[in-house]
Amino acid sequence: MIYITRRERFCSAHKLSRPEWSAEKNLKIFGSCSKPNWHGHNFILHVTVKGEVNPETGFVVNLKDLSPVIQDKVIDKLDHKNINVDVDFMFGKMASTEVLAVEIWNQLVAPIREMGVELHCIKVHETENNFIEYFG
Amino acid sequence: MIYITRRERFCSAHKLSRPEWSAEKNLKIFGSCSKPNWHGHNFILHVTVKGEVNPETGFVVNLKDLSPVIQDKVIDKLDHKNINVDVDFMFGKMASTEVLAVEIWNQLVAPIREMGVELHCIKVHETENNFIEYFG
Amino acid sequence: MIYITRRERFCSAHKLSRPEWSAEKNLKIFGSCSKPNWHGHNFILHVTVKGEVNPETGFVVNLKDLSPVIQDKVIDKLDHKNINVDVDFMFGKMASTEVLAVEIWNQLVAPIREMGVELHCIKVHETENNFIEYFG
Amino acid sequence: MIYITRRERFCSAHKLSRPEWSAEKNLKIFGSCSKPNWHGHNFILHVTVKGEVNPETGFVVNLKDLSPVIQDKVIDKLDHKNINVDVDFMFGKMASTEVLAVEIWNQLVAPIREMGVELHCIKVHETENNFIEYFG
Amino acid sequence: MIYITRRERFCSAHKLSRPEWSAEKNLKIFGSCSKPNWHGHNFILHVTVKGEVNPETGFVVNLKDLSPVIQDKVIDKLDHKNINVDVDFMFGKMASTEVLAVEIWNQLVAPIREMGVELHCIKVHETENNFIEYFG
Amino acid sequence: MIYITRRERFCSAHKLSRPEWSAEKNLKIFGSCSKPNWHGHNFILHVTVKGEVNPETGFVVNLKDLSPVIQDKVIDKLDHKNINVDVDFMFGKMASTEVLAVEIWNQLVAPIREMGVELHCIKVHETENNFIEYFG
Repeated sequence: MIYITRRERFCSAHKLSRPEWSAEKNLKIFGSCSKPNWHGHNFILHVTVKGEVNPETGFVVNLKDLSPVIQDKVIDKLDHKNINVDVDFMFGKMASTEVLAVEIWNQLVAPIREMGVELHCIKVHETENNFIEYFG
Repeated sequence: MIYITRRERFCSAHKLSRPEWSAEKNLKIFGSCSKPNWHGHNFILHVTVKGEVNPETGFVVNLKDLSPVIQDKVIDKLDHKNINVDVDFMFGKMASTEVLAVEIWNQLVAPIREMGVELHCIKVHETENNFIEYFG
Repeated sequence: MIYITRRERFCSAHKLSRPEWSAEKNLKIFGSCSKPNWHGHNFILHVTVKGEVNPETGFVVNLKDLSPVIQDKVIDKLDHKNINVDVDFMFGKMASTEVLAVEIWNQLVAPIREMGVELHCIKVHETENNFIEYFG
Repeated sequence: MIYITRRERFCSAHKLSRPEWSAEKNLKIFGSCSKPNWHGHNFILHVTVKGEVNPETGFVVNLKDLSPVIQDKVIDKLDHKNINVDVDFMFGKMASTEVLAVEIWNQLVAPIREMGVELHCIKVHETENNFIEYFG
Repeated sequence: MIYITRRERFCSAHKLSRPEWSAEKNLKIFGSCSKPNWHGHNFILHVTVKGEVNPETGFVVNLKDLSPVIQDKVIDKLDHKNINVDVDFMFGKMASTEVLAVEIWNQLVAPIREMGVELHCIKVHETENNFIEYFG
Repeated sequence: MIYITRRERFCSAHKLSRPEWSAEKNLKIFGSCSKPNWHGHNFILHVTVKGEVNPETGFVVNLKDLSPVIQDKVIDKLDHKNINVDVDFMFGKMASTEVLAVEIWNQLVAPIREMGVELHCIKVHETENNFIEYFG
C-alpha cells in the first residue's frame, strides 16, 4: 500500500457565527472569527489517496486524472468564494475548518473510489498555526 | 546602517471591483478577485526599519517597542476584517495589495520616525505566489 | 473523529551530556550537542487533539480554550529558558527532543482530557532536518 | 514508542516512459514527465524510525549513526545522478516517486533494523505539491 | 514606484561541464554538477516588476497579463526540459543558475516593457540553499 | 553584476543583558531575552556576494570555494556554541542579531574580496518573525 498526497490551495472568505445567538455570545465563542463582514484565508488542502502501485505506470493514481477531480469537485467551488454563501456543499453548515474538511471528504470519496483507489485523508490548513485532518 | 524586519500576519476578506463598471467588465479586469461575495487571504506583512545600532542595547529598534505600533496601527485594523468595508485607512480605495502596501506605509512612517528610526520597506504577500514591496 | 493540530514555538537553550561521563565520552556520543556552554534552537511544537465535532460550534475543541493551556503548561515554561536548568518537568532528565516530547505529552494529556477531547500526538521539531513524534 | 524523522535532500534527473510504448502513448500517460531529454527535481526525503528511548542517551537512535547509513545507502546513490540510468537499486524499474519510495525503503529496512530500531515510513516529496509515503 | 513579484516554478535537468575539458577538470571545477548523465532541480523563479499604481485598477500590472508572458517566454521552455539540450535561449551557454537568470531577464525585459512597466529583478533558486539575483 | 546567495544555519545559545544593569532594568529593556540561564535559536544566515560572471564557468564565485570560507570563519565558531561565551569575534559585544550580523560581515569581507568578488549583504534570521540585514 502506497500513499500519495496532492497539495492544492484556495482563497476564500468565511465567518463563524450562529444567527440565533446574540453578537455577544458569538463573539464570546467564536472570537474575531465572528466579525460580521467576513474575513478570509489562504486555505491549503492536502488530499491523500492510497492504493497499490500499477506495475505498468509506477503510479498509485495518475495525478493527471486525480487533479481535475479535486479541481472540479472542490477547488472551483471554494476558490475566490465565500464559504458561507457560495458553496453548495456547505449550505446550512458551520463554516469551521473541521466541517469543511469533512465535507471536502464527502465530495471526493466516491469519485476517487471510481478511480480504483481509496481516499485516505483530507487535511486543511487554515493558517500556518492550525490545521484539521479527517480520515473518514 | 542596519535593517531590521518584523513579520506579522493578518487574515482578511476583500474583493476587487469598481461599482461603476458592469459585472462583465469587473470580471474581465479583475477575474475571480471580483466575485461579489468576497474572498480572503492570509496576508503576510514584512515591516523593514533602518537605523544605527544603539551601542547600549545592540538594537536598531527594540521590537518590544516596534511590535505594538504595528499591532495598533495596522494589524488590529485588518486582521479578521473586511478590507473594503471595515478598515478606515482603506475607505474609498481599491483593495489591491499594491494600494494596501502604500496605505500601511502611510500608517507607519510617522510613528516609526518618532521612535528614532526610518521605515524602509513594506512588503505584503497576498499568496505564496505574489507579493508587493513599497519603499515610500 | 477529527484531528486538530495547533502549532506553537519556543526558543530554548539546552545541551546533551551525562555528568558521570568524561568530556571525551560525552563528545563521542552526543557530538557538538555536548558542548559545555549550551546551544539552542527555535523548537516547533505541534499539538494534535482528536474528538467529535460539536454540532453547535463546528469545533472539535475551541482553540481559544486549548491555546492558553498549551501556553501555561508548556510554552511559558520552555520559551527563552534553559531546558536543562529552568524547566521543572525536565529536572533530572536528558534534554533530548525525544524526552522533551514525552514530557510535553505528560504535561498536556490530563488537562486536554478535561476539555472533553483526547491528546493524539506531540511533535517537536529541533531543526528543519529532524523531529520527534510521540503518541502516548 | 517514539518516532524520529530525519530530513535529507537529493537533486536528480529522471523521466517516466516505457520504451515499448510509442512517444504518443508515453505523452498521453506520463505527460511532460515523459520528455526524452530528462527533467529533474529537488527531492526531499523523510526517513522515520521508531523505537524505545534509550535511558542513557535519551535517544531512540543516535542521528550520528543513522545519518551516515542514509547517506551511504540512498543519498550518495541518488544525488546529482540520473535515477533511470545511474542508480543500481532502480535499474529496470519505473522511475516514479512511488517506486522510488519503495526502493529506498528496501535499501534502509535491514541496516536500520541492525541498529536496534525499526524503519516506520519513507516519505518522498517530488515537488511542493506532491509526495509519497510508504510504510512497508 | 511599487514592486510586484510573481513566483513561478520549473523542474528541469541540467549539468555543468565544458566539453573541451577532461572529466577530471570538469569534476574538479564543477564537482557533482558535472556528472555526465544529468541531474535536476525544482527551480523557483521570482520575477519582480516595478511601476506606478494604475488608479483605476489599483494594479502596477495585471497578473492576468503578466503571468501568460512569463509562462510563454520562460516556463514553457524550461519546465520538464533539459536546460542544456532543449532550451533555445540557453544553446551554447553554460547552464549555471547565474547564466540562466541573465537569459531569463533577456527573454522578459522587452515584453514586460511593452506592458508599460519595467522588469526589476530576476531571482532563481536552484536549491533551498542557493539563489541568484540579476537586476539587468 | 550578478548576486549569489548562500544559505547556512547555526544553532546557538545567547542572552541579552548588560552586567552593569540590574536584573529589573535588563528585564525591562531586553524582556525574556535577558533570562540568566540562556536561551537559543536556529539562526539562518544568508551570505550574498556580487561580481561578474566568469565566462568559462558561468559562476560569479564557485560555491565549492565560498562555502568552506563561510564554514571556517563563521559557522564553525557559532554552531552549537554560546554566542556570549564561546565566539572570539563576539567577545565583549552585545549578542544581539544586529551586532552579530555586523561581526559576521567583518569576518567575511576580506576573505571574500580575496576570491575576486565582493560581499554584498549579511542577513541573519533569529526567528521566523524577525531578521537583520547589513550591507557594510
